[in-house]
Amino acid sequence: MGKNVTQKLISDHLMAGEMIPGTEIGLKIDQTLCQDATGTMVMLELEAMKLDRAKTEASAQYVDHNVIQEDSKNPDDHLFLQSAARRFGLYFSRPGNGVSHPVHMQRLAKPGKTLLGSDSHTCANGCMGMLAMGAGGIDVAMAIAGEPFYVKMPQVWGIKLTGELPDWVSAKDVILELLRRYDVKGGVGKVIEYYGPGLKNLSAMDRHVIANMGAELGATGTVFPSDEEIKRFLKTQDREEDWIELVADEDAEYDIHEEINLSDLEPLIAKPSSPGNVVPVKDLQGESIYQSYVGSSANPGFRDFAIAAEIVKGRRIAPGISFDINPTSRQMLTDLVKEGHIASFLTAGARLHQAGCNGCIGMGQAPATGRNSLRTTPRNFPGRSGTREDSVFLCSPETAAASALKGEIIDPRSLDFDYPKVKDPKHPTIDVNLLEAPLPLEEARKVKLEKGPNIASIPDMDALPDTLEIPILLKMKDNISTDEILAGGARVLPYRSNLPEISKFAFEIIDDTYYDRAMAIRDQGGHAVVGGFNYGQGSSREHAALAPRYLGLRVALVKDFARIHWQNLVNFGVLPLTFDDESDYDKLEQGDILQLKDIRNQVKNGNDIIIKVKDKGTEIKAHFALSERQKDIMLKGGLINWVKEA
Amino acid sequence: MGKNVTQKLISDHLMAGEMIPGTEIGLKIDQTLCQDATGTMVMLELEAMKLDRAKTEASAQYVDHNVIQEDSKNPDDHLFLQSAARRFGLYFSRPGNGVSHPVHMQRLAKPGKTLLGSDSHTCANGCMGMLAMGAGGIDVAMAIAGEPFYVKMPQVWGIKLTGELPDWVSAKDVILELLRRYDVKGGVGKVIEYYGPGLKNLSAMDRHVIANMGAELGATGTVFPSDEEIKRFLKTQDREEDWIELVADEDAEYDIHEEINLSDLEPLIAKPSSPGNVVPVKDLQGESIYQSYVGSSANPGFRDFAIAAEIVKGRRIAPGISFDINPTSRQMLTDLVKEGHIASFLTAGARLHQAGCNGCIGMGQAPATGRNSLRTTPRNFPGRSGTREDSVFLCSPETAAASALKGEIIDPRSLDFDYPKVKDPKHPTIDVNLLEAPLPLEEARKVKLEKGPNIASIPDMDALPDTLEIPILLKMKDNISTDEILAGGARVLPYRSNLPEISKFAFEIIDDTYYDRAMAIRDQGGHAVVGGFNYGQGSSREHAALAPRYLGLRVALVKDFARIHWQNLVNFGVLPLTFDDESDYDKLEQGDILQLKDIRNQVKNGNDIIIKVKDKGTEIKAHFALSERQKDIMLKGGLINWVKEA
Repeated sequence: MGKNVTQKLISDHLMAGEMIPGTEIGLKIDQTLCQDATGTMVMLELEAMKLDRAKTEASAQYVDHNVIQEDSKNPDDHLFLQSAARRFGLYFSRPGNGVSHPVHMQRLAKPGKTLLGSDSHTCANGCMGMLAMGAGGIDVAMAIAGEPFYVKMPQVWGIKLTGELPDWVSAKDVILELLRRYDVKGGVGKVIEYYGPGLKNLSAMDRHVIANMGAELGATGTVFPSDEEIKRFLKTQDREEDWIELVADEDAEYDIHEEINLSDLEPLIAKPSSPGNVVPVKDLQGESIYQSYVGSSANPGFRDFAIAAEIVKGRRIAPGISFDINPTSRQMLTDLVKEGHIASFLTAGARLHQAGCNGCIGMGQAPATGRNSLRTTPRNFPGRSGTREDSVFLCSPETAAASALKGEIIDPRSLDFDYPKVKDPKHPTIDVNLLEAPLPLEEARKVKLEKGPNIASIPDMDALPDTLEIPILLKMKDNISTDEILAGGARVLPYRSNLPEISKFAFEIIDDTYYDRAMAIRDQGGHAVVGGFNYGQGSSREHAALAPRYLGLRVALVKDFARIHWQNLVNFGVLPLTFDDESDYDKLEQGDILQLKDIRNQVKNGNDIIIKVKDKGTEIKAHFALSERQKDIMLKGGLINWVKEA
Repeated sequence: MGKNVTQKLISDHLMAGEMIPGTEIGLKIDQTLCQDATGTMVMLELEAMKLDRAKTEASAQYVDHNVIQEDSKNPDDHLFLQSAARRFGLYFSRPGNGVSHPVHMQRLAKPGKTLLGSDSHTCANGCMGMLAMGAGGIDVAMAIAGEPFYVKMPQVWGIKLTGELPDWVSAKDVILELLRRYDVKGGVGKVIEYYGPGLKNLSAMDRHVIANMGAELGATGTVFPSDEEIKRFLKTQDREEDWIELVADEDAEYDIHEEINLSDLEPLIAKPSSPGNVVPVKDLQGESIYQSYVGSSANPGFRDFAIAAEIVKGRRIAPGISFDINPTSRQMLTDLVKEGHIASFLTAGARLHQAGCNGCIGMGQAPATGRNSLRTTPRNFPGRSGTREDSVFLCSPETAAASALKGEIIDPRSLDFDYPKVKDPKHPTIDVNLLEAPLPLEEARKVKLEKGPNIASIPDMDALPDTLEIPILLKMKDNISTDEILAGGARVLPYRSNLPEISKFAFEIIDDTYYDRAMAIRDQGGHAVVGGFNYGQGSSREHAALAPRYLGLRVALVKDFARIHWQNLVNFGVLPLTFDDESDYDKLEQGDILQLKDIRNQVKNGNDIIIKVKDKGTEIKAHFALSERQKDIMLKGGLINWVKEA
């Protein structure tokens, strides 16, 4: 039986497991990317692992998220990332160079390769015939260190594209159509693979738009073939030699089937506050707006800006509208300037912002309270814009520009002029001035990590001890989220590169005495916590495991775990135990002393463990369900030690 | 005897007092400007005064300081300012339109007029043959309401310019030379007036550069004549009809004399952390830099950007340098795009930011800790960049661009190519798309003020009571600053439009129980505070008077006051008392109850007052030294009531 593109990519990179959907496989990772918000911790992990040099074919550290510098924390982080990239042999894309995904696509992406990134939209580079996946920071650190990436073998969801996009309809409407049909969980456990005759009318950057928002469907990845269009794209980047053809075999099959006829599509829009909340734009015609926003990795291409510029060219945006233009890269911005599109924007009344992620991740351009904001960005979760009571709509550049002219939401087809045609520049700017290439090994070894006052190395962590006699510092109820374990937001996140500092916020929302109580007994064996069902739900942030571990957490004993937090606990060497008998939960109190003996043997030889409650005589049975690899990680005290000792 | 330009401007606008240097005069104000950071309180004051419509010839509200929108507070403030501008008949310059000073110069400045602005660099428009002065918010509110502005009659400091600037030396070096000679207090009590044959070689925008940084000399204002160059400038703005000639009489005299031969100047630079710390650039040659920054009201002109662009054109900035370009207005940015200069910047490796004040006031582009930043901005006070341990140098665009190429400070004359010549565009862009004109009266009256959740009206304040029996809530030492009375910074300033909220921070640094104790007795007559020498030194922020007043402060009894805070206390109806006998300070304790009787008569009829200390039997004599106008303000409970009842 023939293979589809996804299956080819996976079988070419399979290091462990079998290609049976739902089972764990280990994949060789060829390339990685980090952005600055997640990257500082990845670099500190590489330091802790004592990595000498990246073992991937190409790894890049981008600075695109926190490019507003209101105090020294962000610029200090940038210098740290730059020094780490130089030390470990990574590419370094400086602040102002642009958003990771389109820059990576232009300069580093290669058909046939795997890419792992510490950013959920890493899947965007699936447009290049790559298997590109988002992951947690430590997963990317491991990949940089040459370890395989472990993931459940996905189902492959083949989506046949036919027809051709009508005027005023563009790639964004394709992915909005899929979100309209399947909502935000429709892609979970799947790689979405596009194929069919409709592809020939979608440029590489159009495919980027579609692949990017695979993340909003919850997909493991999005894959496009590497065809003549990708060859053309690489040629414009002077990288034709990086092209290989990678298409599905003629007799390839897909686990799931779907079809989209591009000719049938119309302008679509996702209403507040979910990307899955999609309706035709015409249904909202006439709703007033405060802001129209063009930019982000979800509409990053020259075309996406040029079409918006052509729509407003020689016209004026409606009074009172904030029309915000956010170039995705310096290359793109340079071309937009040269081709006259920036002049068209400015003359029409637009605000031009620096190249970067900007308002897409709440770094600038937050809308006024309750006012409607139309954006070409990928997400409109409540508050993501920076404004707590926001009202964000997601749409194409065509819809955003047309609505800016009118001051209200309009279907761009209702404009009284013809659809402008735009072409990419024949010779787009290739500018690697702000993309530093990896240093040669000998030079790299001389580089010292530059740590500003807010950057602290990850302290050494000890191996799993053989006996523990530790108190329960917290007994918690069901559904404790990682936000309660370690809050996000502007108060806490600036300390993301400083484990001792960020640890002060651990469990603060639940019990603000936790930090002091944990610190007091940190060097006397540590402590345990007890929880109910769905412990650790919510955000994947790894600090929620790392910070309590730093404060001495050795055992989390709960009714059950949320998947990603469970993984993070394992990665950082906290024993994640589940009650055999859930009613034992009621027998435990905060302050009880748990006694665990012969722990290392029990971990090595099984998945069960006996816990005694001191002074009560109670015995509690628990289990952990670790794979052999995970047992080894746990015994060594976490992934960092495991790599260091490998 | 003939008059100089300053004397002509003052005598044309004199409403009270005599033109004797050092004595108080009242001046008619023709124009006002506010920026957003100070403007919200001005607009709330206009609301509290129940103003129907601005009585000036032209008043403008600019949004240029807080154009980063990380949450709803800034955009909500913008909408409030827009609604207030519409309601009160002001121009409104929207976020993204640019920095107030150059935009005002281009669109609204008129020779022969007075301009009062709630921004210390308002003096920049002195380049247009105007008397342009910075002032506190309530002063500007009063001017908008048609009241004269009271100020001490300045000395006129005549500075004769001769010669012509050499290559690689520009207007910034002229004002840096004056700062080198006289330091940051050299202009206090003076208006600096430039004249002489050297003027003919300085464009209107060059003069803006020089006038702007009169603020750094502490001058009351900077005045240039309105000559043929100003006529030319206004013509490029399609405003030739606004021109009048305004030059010094041939036999004019100046109170103080100075001369600068432009031909003798060389590139200068102000070292950290004072604008007066000036040395020749060549003295610092070779010092490494982290950042080079072009922009701000201190170098706002097309030329200032174009010369920097020409210097880097076809070249590459040094690796690792952040070369930050901050356009001062959309008009300017549009011209820079059209003339190819933005393309030159980008290709050389620059970061392009939105139009606004930006990093000049610490809103973005903060440097990394301890790293050298070269800036064309007017100020380098410690921490102003946003980075606590900063190291900021002030210089010309020539020096900034040349140093960006080298990666270290260099005298631009040491570059190995000829000084590029740049000319302003023959027909600069005139773009009023984001500058809304005042609404007609009837339409304006229908406008409702739009107040987001963080904007609160100023509550009504009562008149001065005739008797007070109030406790001393705080007894403070000498040299209490307004930063201690009400802190600045990112934690507090976001509440600048919300008196009840910002009041929670009053005196917090000195005693964090103050707020609760004051609120507890606010409706029982209020309270007093006692201080030592130099009470209220530092920043002019009016919240430091307004917030304690809101919490019930009626009397501040001290050894002596810093001038501006004393004025602010008067403006907001707090009785500012000075001990007749300073040793009485020692007789008072926190908690003592002060009894004041027959207060209104004592204020009306003299400048002395008797205070009894309850339970102690002590009697304390104090005085207040208010003018008749100020007594009337005090009796009515502050300026807002005074205007409301006028």
